Amino acid sequence: MDEKLMSYQVGDKIEIFVLLKAAEVRTAKNNKRYIAFTFEDSSGEMGGMYWDASEQDIETFKAGKVVHLIGKREEYQSKPQIKISQLRTPNVGEPSDPGQFVTRAPMKKSEMVDEINQVMFEITNPTWNRLTRFLINKHQADFFDFPAAKTNHHAFEGGLAFHTISILRLAHSVCNQYPNVNAPLLYAAAILHDLGKTVELSDPITTQYTVAGNLIGHISLIDGELVEACQTLKLDPSSEDVILLRHMILAHHGLLEYGSPVRPQVLEAEILHDLDELDASIMAIQTSLDHTEPGEFSERLFGMDNRRFFEFEGTKNHEQDTKKPEN
Amino acid sequence: MDEKLMSYQVGDKIEIFVLLKAAEVRTAKNNKRYIAFTFEDSSGEMGGMYWDASEQDIETFKAGKVVHLIGKREEYQSKPQIKISQLRTPNVGEPSDPGQFVTRAPMKKSEMVDEINQVMFEITNPTWNRLTRFLINKHQADFFDFPAAKTNHHAFEGGLAFHTISILRLAHSVCNQYPNVNAPLLYAAAILHDLGKTVELSDPITTQYTVAGNLIGHISLIDGELVEACQTLKLDPSSEDVILLRHMILAHHGLLEYGSPVRPQVLEAEILHDLDELDASIMAIQTSLDHTEPGEFSERLFGMDNRRFFEFEGTKNHEQDTKKPEN
Amino acid sequence: MDEKLMSYQVGDKIEIFVLLKAAEVRTAKNNKRYIAFTFEDSSGEMGGMYWDASEQDIETFKAGKVVHLIGKREEYQSKPQIKISQLRTPNVGEPSDPGQFVTRAPMKKSEMVDEINQVMFEITNPTWNRLTRFLINKHQADFFDFPAAKTNHHAFEGGLAFHTISILRLAHSVCNQYPNVNAPLLYAAAILHDLGKTVELSDPITTQYTVAGNLIGHISLIDGELVEACQTLKLDPSSEDVILLRHMILAHHGLLEYGSPVRPQVLEAEILHDLDELDASIMAIQTSLDHTEPGEFSERLFGMDNRRFFEFEGTKNHEQDTKKPEN
Amino acid sequence: MDEKLMSYQVGDKIEIFVLLKAAEVRTAKNNKRYIAFTFEDSSGEMGGMYWDASEQDIETFKAGKVVHLIGKREEYQSKPQIKISQLRTPNVGEPSDPGQFVTRAPMKKSEMVDEINQVMFEITNPTWNRLTRFLINKHQADFFDFPAAKTNHHAFEGGLAFHTISILRLAHSVCNQYPNVNAPLLYAAAILHDLGKTVELSDPITTQYTVAGNLIGHISLIDGELVEACQTLKLDPSSEDVILLRHMILAHHGLLEYGSPVRPQVLEAEILHDLDELDASIMAIQTSLDHTEPGEFSERLFGMDNRRFFEFEGTKNHEQDTKKPEN
Amino acid sequence: MDEKLMSYQVGDKIEIFVLLKAAEVRTAKNNKRYIAFTFEDSSGEMGGMYWDASEQDIETFKAGKVVHLIGKREEYQSKPQIKISQLRTPNVGEPSDPGQFVTRAPMKKSEMVDEINQVMFEITNPTWNRLTRFLINKHQADFFDFPAAKTNHHAFEGGLAFHTISILRLAHSVCNQYPNVNAPLLYAAAILHDLGKTVELSDPITTQYTVAGNLIGHISLIDGELVEACQTLKLDPSSEDVILLRHMILAHHGLLEYGSPVRPQVLEAEILHDLDELDASIMAIQTSLDHTEPGEFSERLFGMDNRRFFEFEGTKNHEQDTKKPEN
Amino acid sequence: MDEKLMSYQVGDKIEIFVLLKAAEVRTAKNNKRYIAFTFEDSSGEMGGMYWDASEQDIETFKAGKVVHLIGKREEYQSKPQIKISQLRTPNVGEPSDPGQFVTRAPMKKSEMVDEINQVMFEITNPTWNRLTRFLINKHQADFFDFPAAKTNHHAFEGGLAFHTISILRLAHSVCNQYPNVNAPLLYAAAILHDLGKTVELSDPITTQYTVAGNLIGHISLIDGELVEACQTLKLDPSSEDVILLRHMILAHHGLLEYGSPVRPQVLEAEILHDLDELDASIMAIQTSLDHTEPGEFSERLFGMDNRRFFEFEGTKNHEQDTKKPEN
Repeated sequence: MDEKLMSYQVGDKIEIFVLLKAAEVRTAKNNKRYIAFTFEDSSGEMGGMYWDASEQDIETFKAGKVVHLIGKREEYQSKPQIKISQLRTPNVGEPSDPGQFVTRAPMKKSEMVDEINQVMFEITNPTWNRLTRFLINKHQADFFDFPAAKTNHHAFEGGLAFHTISILRLAHSVCNQYPNVNAPLLYAAAILHDLGKTVELSDPITTQYTVAGNLIGHISLIDGELVEACQTLKLDPSSEDVILLRHMILAHHGLLEYGSPVRPQVLEAEILHDLDELDASIMAIQTSLDHTEPGEFSERLFGMDNRRFFEFEGTKNHEQDTKKPEN
Repeated sequence: MDEKLMSYQVGDKIEIFVLLKAAEVRTAKNNKRYIAFTFEDSSGEMGGMYWDASEQDIETFKAGKVVHLIGKREEYQSKPQIKISQLRTPNVGEPSDPGQFVTRAPMKKSEMVDEINQVMFEITNPTWNRLTRFLINKHQADFFDFPAAKTNHHAFEGGLAFHTISILRLAHSVCNQYPNVNAPLLYAAAILHDLGKTVELSDPITTQYTVAGNLIGHISLIDGELVEACQTLKLDPSSEDVILLRHMILAHHGLLEYGSPVRPQVLEAEILHDLDELDASIMAIQTSLDHTEPGEFSERLFGMDNRRFFEFEGTKNHEQDTKKPEN
Repeated sequence: MDEKLMSYQVGDKIEIFVLLKAAEVRTAKNNKRYIAFTFEDSSGEMGGMYWDASEQDIETFKAGKVVHLIGKREEYQSKPQIKISQLRTPNVGEPSDPGQFVTRAPMKKSEMVDEINQVMFEITNPTWNRLTRFLINKHQADFFDFPAAKTNHHAFEGGLAFHTISILRLAHSVCNQYPNVNAPLLYAAAILHDLGKTVELSDPITTQYTVAGNLIGHISLIDGELVEACQTLKLDPSSEDVILLRHMILAHHGLLEYGSPVRPQVLEAEILHDLDELDASIMAIQTSLDHTEPGEFSERLFGMDNRRFFEFEGTKNHEQDTKKPEN
Repeated sequence: MDEKLMSYQVGDKIEIFVLLKAAEVRTAKNNKRYIAFTFEDSSGEMGGMYWDASEQDIETFKAGKVVHLIGKREEYQSKPQIKISQLRTPNVGEPSDPGQFVTRAPMKKSEMVDEINQVMFEITNPTWNRLTRFLINKHQADFFDFPAAKTNHHAFEGGLAFHTISILRLAHSVCNQYPNVNAPLLYAAAILHDLGKTVELSDPITTQYTVAGNLIGHISLIDGELVEACQTLKLDPSSEDVILLRHMILAHHGLLEYGSPVRPQVLEAEILHDLDELDASIMAIQTSLDHTEPGEFSERLFGMDNRRFFEFEGTKNHEQDTKKPEN
Repeated sequence: MDEKLMSYQVGDKIEIFVLLKAAEVRTAKNNKRYIAFTFEDSSGEMGGMYWDASEQDIETFKAGKVVHLIGKREEYQSKPQIKISQLRTPNVGEPSDPGQFVTRAPMKKSEMVDEINQVMFEITNPTWNRLTRFLINKHQADFFDFPAAKTNHHAFEGGLAFHTISILRLAHSVCNQYPNVNAPLLYAAAILHDLGKTVELSDPITTQYTVAGNLIGHISLIDGELVEACQTLKLDPSSEDVILLRHMILAHHGLLEYGSPVRPQVLEAEILHDLDELDASIMAIQTSLDHTEPGEFSERLFGMDNRRFFEFEGTKNHEQDTKKPEN
Repeated sequence: MDEKLMSYQVGDKIEIFVLLKAAEVRTAKNNKRYIAFTFEDSSGEMGGMYWDASEQDIETFKAGKVVHLIGKREEYQSKPQIKISQLRTPNVGEPSDPGQFVTRAPMKKSEMVDEINQVMFEITNPTWNRLTRFLINKHQADFFDFPAAKTNHHAFEGGLAFHTISILRLAHSVCNQYPNVNAPLLYAAAILHDLGKTVELSDPITTQYTVAGNLIGHISLIDGELVEACQTLKLDPSSEDVILLRHMILAHHGLLEYGSPVRPQVLEAEILHDLDELDASIMAIQTSLDHTEPGEFSERLFGMDNRRFFEFEGTKNHEQDTKKPEN
């Protein structure tokens, strides 16, 4: 059966494997405990209460687990909700990999690892090369699995690395076109710029902001790790090389209002900021247009100043046939 | 003799060929007329008064002409000024081409014409192709000579076409990387987006804003011409194709505050705006860094929110040797 | 029976003639089609679903039609909704004119036509006179029927012409008081300033933004038509007369943030903007106060920066008796 | 001799009657006292130092006095300055009225008094009538002489009353056009709205901000006097009538950012604000265009967001002949 | 029984004494009247409809009364609501004091009176002393009972005086640390700065904005009373002493955008504004953290730019043991 | 002779000891080198050119040295300038300590050291105590000598420590008044919050921004050192203690627009920001009022939103006699 969570209508009976994206244990007025679940599959997410939860239930049904759910689609306070009839863990042979229930980047993890490694060779400055390798190695396990954001753009498994690679490709074109741009600096900073998100966010499955993420933010988190790495690698933190790399990372949000403590003041920092925005915009608009009918406007995109985008087609289809035949 | 205008210090004797960038005829208190000149060469510009101007002087020394100037560098009200001793038109064999006294784009005009023509073939949608060809033909004489702005970025002869070509190259990379982008729409709009500047600005030598430039602006000027062109070419102005192309042009400043009457609402319009900013930023920063010593910060750039940019060198030189060996 | 749509409470039986403001055909999960209606009369609007719609139903019950509705007032997801029992088209002798179900301007159409025609004689500049007559003739059918906006101020049938006439009357007073104001320019621009709304909006009954309205906007739409009209009428688009009239229209929103690509730079453009705002504000506040009890504050007005306005009475009534006895 | 102050060029000998707009006594390094004068006539103002001033000089040459000045036009630190040769008070028969050396409103004082008195009869609400008469009587001496501002709009003698009358005329038109507007409230508030400027500014000749003007501002100054007047006239300050009139005055700057402690929340307050801006804008632009050549742009107007305004002529002259023949 | 209003869950039976915070009489479609109640106790507030209300019910159950309520907790349109079974006034011996059902300041009223009186002795300037005493006496009944705001910070009975006292204590520390600060001016203004809230708000129990509060605001209300008081006390309103005190009050919101008609321009006014914000911030955050679990973030605080605040504990508890043992 | 630099007038002969605040070596058009000096003493600073500088001159007259200057006060391009006649280093017995030529904090260095040490004992949390001691020790040499800013507030030698101590005193009062505030966290962060300025600025004598200061900023500089210190001291950088302390420092500018990458989200961070602003404001206003005559307004203060502050006296003097006699 291949039904998806969001395709059920009010009153439909549900029978489906889903991921437990969140599982908050609460105490009801009768002093019994219950679990407030958020169920998720690749179509979206929906909530449901599990009353009178036993100790074993609480132990079994934790966030991040896959479960088999039988229930009914209802509506509570204007939001979809599931009345749970039965919940059980998967049997052998049934789906149990959380990764199958979340959206993934449109590129294999191994390919992303290869492409990042390839770029490392172009970072010919030894200070930047060592720092970048050290920090990517340190966070390797998370860097290729985390999303690039909780919501907004690239909010899918592997989104962080995929967004990084997109920027690197754009950066490559820019370096070819404008020969004065310092490519190693731009590449090193592009790789590191969002790496702090592996600390800012909890995990790729049940993605939440951590306390450190809220109180420090991914920009200062990776900046701190970079200074720490200098100490470990015995690099001088007051050298021009280190100052430039820190500046690139600190300034990549472009404006103070967006959380950068300094604005771009070297050419490469301005470029990194612009390419970051360009890729994030294209990805956010494209994702939204994928769910928009031709001739219609998309939903409002919060991350794009609440604009709606138009999906045109007559023209588009016509063009696709003849566009870039041999490119 | 190869002295430049801006290299003279207070008190130096000047003897040089210069361009008359401006020549305003005024009447002194004694009822005699004089001319307030702005002299220019590739190093910059400086003013000077020409007292007791005869009818013939006024006729001879007009803005846009090259002259031989003898005078003295002085200071008046805290600004450099030239006390004119003698002014004459060039003799045969002496410099007389105004174009030699202004900065030019770093690409030959013929190469720019070729590259634009080449892109035309990639605009496979017939409506967009015909409109783009028609308008480029109409303004061909100016498009390859005008600057892209009076000051700020690409403020040199040929800057308009050069800026357009830079955007087209970036657009090509983006279309390769993101296959859903409609390349013909993006290319057509990139070519047309700033074409209204040929009406907004007076000419490439004595560049001033025209009345139409001030009261209508280059965005609405080219938008109006596009509607007019539809009438001439018997294209339906209410077709989706025309609406999309007008939208691309109208929205290319990105924000209402920057003079776009609508914000980008199709993917390609967002991209055009981002690439326009990216190229303008790189050019503005690069130009400023060309006059900045290594280890120093540039002057404040008005068009970049008054930021100063840092010219680093140790790192840069080191990198340049090894960067992109075969790309 | 003279019951109005909005006067029914939850649970009441409904039996009423209403206008179909919107009729969207959708497909249910069981693959049958249904219509999502928006019903409207002069009291407001309410939605309702029509399940299992036949081909003939879809053909019969289109947006813009008047129907007789039997149903029940319910509540769904915190919003009023109608459970439809029966729907039929009006019989002979029953109400069938959509115009009777929408609010109309407080002035007869024929009077509005006369007043606009009268003002035409005061536009003594031949360029402005010809352009204004040409464009009003072109859109005559819509200009006197369209609202001035989808919501906010003058959102009623005929609102566009009524708003235009109110501005012309204010403009007349201003020209009398300040003799240097160029009356023909101000009158011509006042007539044309919002004419683009006949293209920006779909129609006076089921008023929605068109694709051209969203992507181009009413300011650039009428600006484009003005350039086109010059070509038809063989008027020089680069003459001062045409530049001034285009400027008046382009600048009438006053600020770039409000969608004008240029700010007012001639005296008459500043006045047109101010009078546009003055009339829109008075109309918006007055409409809201009509539904506010004396001694109370109105609802928040979105178009007036979310302010609430106070309806005072003691004073007001007292004054009305004695105010302006013979004016 | 009818030479004006600003028409002298550097090096010219000056011999002229002028007003002492400011006369600051200072002590030089040699412990002798000198006076820093600001001279003024209807063409503008210029400074000059009067060295080694005696006790009698200081007593004689005070701000607000007319003097006969002999000197030379010089330049000091990029600003025009006068080297004073001789200074004396006017003899009998020579100009001595300060009022002749400042610009005046284009309407006679007696006519302004009459027009204000006439409007008083239309304020039929007794509370508003009594408060308005009381406060106008209290400040009668200043109300008809003060400017409406130190710089910006209506910065001439009588400007305050003239600006008030212009608003009243516009208000009259508005009340005729929109019958629900409470005319007595609008008229009373229009008369009082800027009356606090008679306390905020020092005097019509040597106009400076007073300490109370800086620390309290004209809005709160007249609001305070209005409450005081209620006490004197035994009117209840908590009555709706008084609250409404106070609100009108407090809100007339429209936005908090412009110094109104509350935003307009009654219809008449919104109208007063709009008419205040309309008249101020027209006056500021008109004044600036009076000094602008046809086909040129004015200087930037600080009070109009630094915009420049275009003085067109071809069209204007043509129109003036035929405009409003009998109105 | 000590159950609180907000502790009931959907479906629970309610039996409880509550305060009638609001009691709006409305007419149902069947022309019978009903009362829309807002019930309140120290835990929060909840609504409920009382159908078919008799004349006597309307007379008996007015806002501000304590009642005994029997009913059931339900949900209507996503909000908690009470289905009323029975309502009666308290019998002798049952709770009837509205004050017991609202939150109160954490300091006794008599102590607050004493502390304010004590500070009066430190206001050694006779003008400031007399004005402060006069106005506190005038509003004595309300000053010690009113909240400092309708919502946001210090929104409890006695909050106005408590907030004032907190500022005075901080002001005392500041005067000790910076000896140039004029303590009497700072203390007098601190006492008066929010006193206008006794007119801006209706009462401490059923707190609403009054018409004068909306149209004039607490800043101008107390400023007007201060001018009035000068007249009563025969103090010169144009003396520096009065101007300074008015300035302190008018400027205490710090920014024009926050409703101050002038910005602080004396040192003491800047300090008053800063201390006002400091105390309001601490109180708002502290109150919110009191309802936040350790390791969690609070709800978003509207008055603190929608920020959430983190309640940390490990560290905090550890510190509390050893902190400030004898201070 | 006790003349100060700024007391000379144009034309005066100068003979004085001064500090070389800046000494830039440049090359003139004649290829000879000259030095552009900035001279300073406690009264202010002034420039002067030293032509035809020998190798030895360049070696001798470096920034930071004290010299004896003979010259003449002139004016160049509207700015005061010194024509240098003779320059020599001080002889034995003549002033040579740069510290004597700059303004100093109004508290002895030894007293400041003592007070900071005393506060250390109140930081009872061991993590915060160790980090604070470690970083203060590391920068001890600079912390008690550096100014708190290049211009604006506390721009004098020792200003950084003095500003820190002022905040600590205010913090002490706040902790006493609000018992829930975590004093050790507040004290530790107060001590560290501006410590990064010892890296951001060059030195206390010839204070300039360093490259690291411009590209990284003092907030991220000290944040990086704090992470580094954790590594050295073997403290866990992901512990709540460290996260809280980093947050306090990162958030202390309060708003993203002011360069904090995160806004305050714990109570103590909000307080630190408020006290930082309060002390900086008082110091900036006080310093400016020290140069303002009673009854006058100060110069505009850039750091206080360009406001001018009023120096009142009548009242102030009267009060000072009787204020706080025994406190």
